[in-house]
Amino acid sequence: MNSETIFPKGKQAPRETFTNTTWLQMLHADEDGAFDTQVYNVTFEPSARTHWHSHPGGQILLITSGTGYYQEKGKPARSLKPGDVVAIRPDVVHWHGASPSSPFVHIGMSTKVHLGPAQWAGAVTDEEYGDATSD
Amino acid sequence: MNSETIFPKGKQAPRETFTNTTWLQMLHADEDGAFDTQVYNVTFEPSARTHWHSHPGGQILLITSGTGYYQEKGKPARSLKPGDVVAIRPDVVHWHGASPSSPFVHIGMSTKVHLGPAQWAGAVTDEEYGDATSD
Repeated sequence: MNSETIFPKGKQAPRETFTNTTWLQMLHADEDGAFDTQVYNVTFEPSARTHWHSHPGGQILLITSGTGYYQEKGKPARSLKPGDVVAIRPDVVHWHGASPSSPFVHIGMSTKVHLGPAQWAGAVTDEEYGDATSD
Repeated sequence: MNSETIFPKGKQAPRETFTNTTWLQMLHADEDGAFDTQVYNVTFEPSARTHWHSHPGGQILLITSGTGYYQEKGKPARSLKPGDVVAIRPDVVHWHGASPSSPFVHIGMSTKVHLGPAQWAGAVTDEEYGDATSD
């Protein structure tokens, strides 16, 4: 399965909250709040990643292509492959993104969005990224 | 992209609420309600479909493989292909499933699950299915 052939790659994600080149396609914006859930497809080029952040209502990731990482602040990073699911509980500070040498694609769901938007907490530095992805 | 190679096919879906052979794999059961959202992968063999049903909290489908249909009670059926997204508002009576000659795979999300489980309203008869899928 190659997600890029299923869901559009979308627009480039904002440089204020992502490091290196990442693409974001909204799949369900939930503008009137009827579902309390937003759904999107995220495509990270190799070495691209989110900044540190948390979600007041939580987030669920479904990995569909490539190799990447998920790390909670203060914990070891978890390597991710297609078929993996990550349930990120409310207010847990974390990042996700590609491995240094592979692109990475996941579907993301922001749940309980009525609790508010993501809270951003600064870039994952090259040193932090290098430590997390070397093993 | 072939979803079957990403998410496990899972167990056979209950014959009480599905017609013909369908496979169901829970991806996020949300047992403690932290996300208010359940996520699952559904694989329909050709001609397989749900019974008529509705969700008190709504449902979102992300089509990942094959060809299928979505129909709301009293409306024409909508043909579905990979990349399509269906947002089914709360309490809308509908069915989804494969075309007569193709398998069909979607990711499903049940949203606002605290409002209660799916409400089932009887099988989609062969006549209803034939009318919906002939064009």
